[in-house]
Amino acid sequence: MQKPSIPKGTRDFSPSEMVKRDYIFNVIKGVFINYGYSPIETPAMENLSTLLGKYGEEGDRLLFKILNSGDFLSKTDPAKIQEKDTNAFAMEISEKGLRYDLTVPFARYVVQNRNDITFPFKRYQIQPVWRADRPQRGRYREFYQCDADVVGSNSLLNEIELLQIIEEVFSLLKIKVTVKINNRKILAGIAEVIGTPESVADIATAMDKIEKIGKDGFVEELTSREIPKESIDELCSYIFSSKQSLVTTDYTNEDKIKFLKSWLLDSETGKKGIEELIIILSILSTTNPSLNIELDLRLARGLNYYTGAIIEVRSDDVPIGSICGGGRYDDLTGIFGLKDVSGVGISFGADRIYDVMEQMKVFPSEVTASVRILIVNFGEKEQNQCLEMLKKIRKAGIPGEYYPDAVKLKKQMTYANLKKIPYVLLAGEEEIKSQQYTLKNMITGIQEKLTVAEIIEKLRQ
Amino acid sequence: MQKPSIPKGTRDFSPSEMVKRDYIFNVIKGVFINYGYSPIETPAMENLSTLLGKYGEEGDRLLFKILNSGDFLSKTDPAKIQEKDTNAFAMEISEKGLRYDLTVPFARYVVQNRNDITFPFKRYQIQPVWRADRPQRGRYREFYQCDADVVGSNSLLNEIELLQIIEEVFSLLKIKVTVKINNRKILAGIAEVIGTPESVADIATAMDKIEKIGKDGFVEELTSREIPKESIDELCSYIFSSKQSLVTTDYTNEDKIKFLKSWLLDSETGKKGIEELIIILSILSTTNPSLNIELDLRLARGLNYYTGAIIEVRSDDVPIGSICGGGRYDDLTGIFGLKDVSGVGISFGADRIYDVMEQMKVFPSEVTASVRILIVNFGEKEQNQCLEMLKKIRKAGIPGEYYPDAVKLKKQMTYANLKKIPYVLLAGEEEIKSQQYTLKNMITGIQEKLTVAEIIEKLRQ
Repeated sequence: MQKPSIPKGTRDFSPSEMVKRDYIFNVIKGVFINYGYSPIETPAMENLSTLLGKYGEEGDRLLFKILNSGDFLSKTDPAKIQEKDTNAFAMEISEKGLRYDLTVPFARYVVQNRNDITFPFKRYQIQPVWRADRPQRGRYREFYQCDADVVGSNSLLNEIELLQIIEEVFSLLKIKVTVKINNRKILAGIAEVIGTPESVADIATAMDKIEKIGKDGFVEELTSREIPKESIDELCSYIFSSKQSLVTTDYTNEDKIKFLKSWLLDSETGKKGIEELIIILSILSTTNPSLNIELDLRLARGLNYYTGAIIEVRSDDVPIGSICGGGRYDDLTGIFGLKDVSGVGISFGADRIYDVMEQMKVFPSEVTASVRILIVNFGEKEQNQCLEMLKKIRKAGIPGEYYPDAVKLKKQMTYANLKKIPYVLLAGEEEIKSQQYTLKNMITGIQEKLTVAEIIEKLRQ
Repeated sequence: MQKPSIPKGTRDFSPSEMVKRDYIFNVIKGVFINYGYSPIETPAMENLSTLLGKYGEEGDRLLFKILNSGDFLSKTDPAKIQEKDTNAFAMEISEKGLRYDLTVPFARYVVQNRNDITFPFKRYQIQPVWRADRPQRGRYREFYQCDADVVGSNSLLNEIELLQIIEEVFSLLKIKVTVKINNRKILAGIAEVIGTPESVADIATAMDKIEKIGKDGFVEELTSREIPKESIDELCSYIFSSKQSLVTTDYTNEDKIKFLKSWLLDSETGKKGIEELIIILSILSTTNPSLNIELDLRLARGLNYYTGAIIEVRSDDVPIGSICGGGRYDDLTGIFGLKDVSGVGISFGADRIYDVMEQMKVFPSEVTASVRILIVNFGEKEQNQCLEMLKKIRKAGIPGEYYPDAVKLKKQMTYANLKKIPYVLLAGEEEIKSQQYTLKNMITGIQEKLTVAEIIEKLRQ
């Protein structure tokens, strides 16, 4: 007999987990809708030609590929098998893969449906994605992303709106967060003014690791990338000098912007980035004065993808990594043949948000099992009356159950307890005669005699 | 440049489709919850050992298999490749598959979590499933199932409750339906009394096809299955005789039960099946007098799976096949090592329900885009005031948008029209000075001057 199990890195969700997950999804969805975003869904499977080459070499490796149906083996090239070239062979027997994120399928959707879409297109999408990553704590092979993107508008009002959404979602979920913001154009400006414009990716990667590797490691890393010493020195004077450090929390956003303004004076791109940042921060300071937002030049997040703002959100209380992130990408749909469509988006990681909320115990107490009342089953004699009562209770919008078998009372009470059903209704022969039923509060243990109408009234509260 | 497309048999869902689909899911989910069912979710991927052999040979063939990660080719047995045995080779390079339905994963879940589950376990599950079927009208390779099952209770009250759920869901969705009901035990009883108890599957298969093949085809089919002529004659006398036909609508359920009672007098199994049917129909006639339910002996639905009641629902108006089905299965978890756990369940096919509702035009008119108001963007001068108004509108729970770019008014109006946004707010310099804004009703074309508070009041209605 096989012992049942599920693939590693995947999870089942029990009723009590589902209720909490639904709560998170509903909050996020509600905010998306309130801000005017419309839902779409795309298939779990995409053609591999859509997915490959969009997430880097590592991403390609982490795609789950689906075996072609039918007699796939007879159609393969025997040479490929002899060569033991797994990648080439995989392409012979597989032409579909599971989606890796929601952004590439969205870009594909936009291009494919461009004639039917009203631009600017504000869409949200809440669906699972799959990655053949090594499973570890907080990292799964199947997890949900909750994305909101705007395509077809260059206005910074979109960045601002997405940051407002971030504040509203986390405030509703009672998670204290710090939003980090950066701008790809500022990073490009820095690379320019230190004389190595082509090294922006190397610089960003090294800055992203500062916390881990320190100043020495940082200098070492850049040296190994063949960045000249004088460039590294200039960079360090802004990163590590106590007078104008761009990476500590000792300085306010305004201070940092001042440092940047004088430093990037000769870079048009850099100045554009600073200007974008100033507009975003200034409008938000009026509309969302309590948003905790911090300029952090170390923020990179797949830099080659973003072209403007880069955003990341972390919990102030639980060090679990990013729980939301996003940014502006100027040419995502270009890879599918639609040029000059700018987009900006954010993605909430529901699984990590769940973990933070569990750890902080911030799920509202009413987020539990929804059944409010169990009618005890005493047997066939009372059955018709019980079914009639149940019908009335449900009709009033109160989730209720009638225990299906006439087993011992104790067993039925245990069932109610384990399922956390707050009320149990006892309707024996006598009760039915008098139309006064015993309602037991399972938390306090108090019993009352009430009519059906009174019971419904009580449960409605 | 690649032209983007999606795998055949899969679909994207646009905002207008999503809103309607969500409506269906919410109705079904709401009824499930009201009847005391708890949600679970299982992973999209299951181990192939969980899935294989559960859906018959055809089902195994229709499973989407996932290629193992890493260098799978180096671990394969070269002999298997030489033999060109596709199936054996597939098992060498794939150990996971996409779920084919929600019932087998649910059985696996129950067995795996049996120590944490409170029985009877009433669960619902709404998730997509995947089948490598030949795509055709109304048949997709990815589609949603909405399942409700009770495991761990033999009581017929469960069958009754599921039939109540069916009536409530379709009544809320405004779809007129006929529920067909049958019982595996009655079919077994028939096979017994005509002297061929071992042929119950053959008989059921032939009866299932009566409408298509007629009496001659029916007799031919059974003859080819080596069922004796006298057995076939007896069967036909109940199936086709105008005096006691069990498969026409000329007779009521009561008539048919009367015919069956006299026919199956000598089969204990048959009598048990009749008794179950009588109890279900009799209780329902009290609790749900308007339910249109019809005993139909032709109903089989993967007979080898069901052991008691068999249920199927069809639209009275749109001939699209079954839109909901289910039944009692006495030993589903047995395959995973947990014996004697009886289950009964139903599954709604959301995709076909969608098609029926579209064709019947029964989606409520309020099931459309949710954005209620667009604030026109006149430029930076009015921006702060507009953002402030927008914040108030959203805070009142009214989904609203501020057009992100200060483009021509006509373009912004077209945007509102295409997105079916019912109101547009114009806040130019003058309006802001007077605090009286122009609200345009996009359907009637009527314009009014109102304060923000009045606008919110109006939109709330």
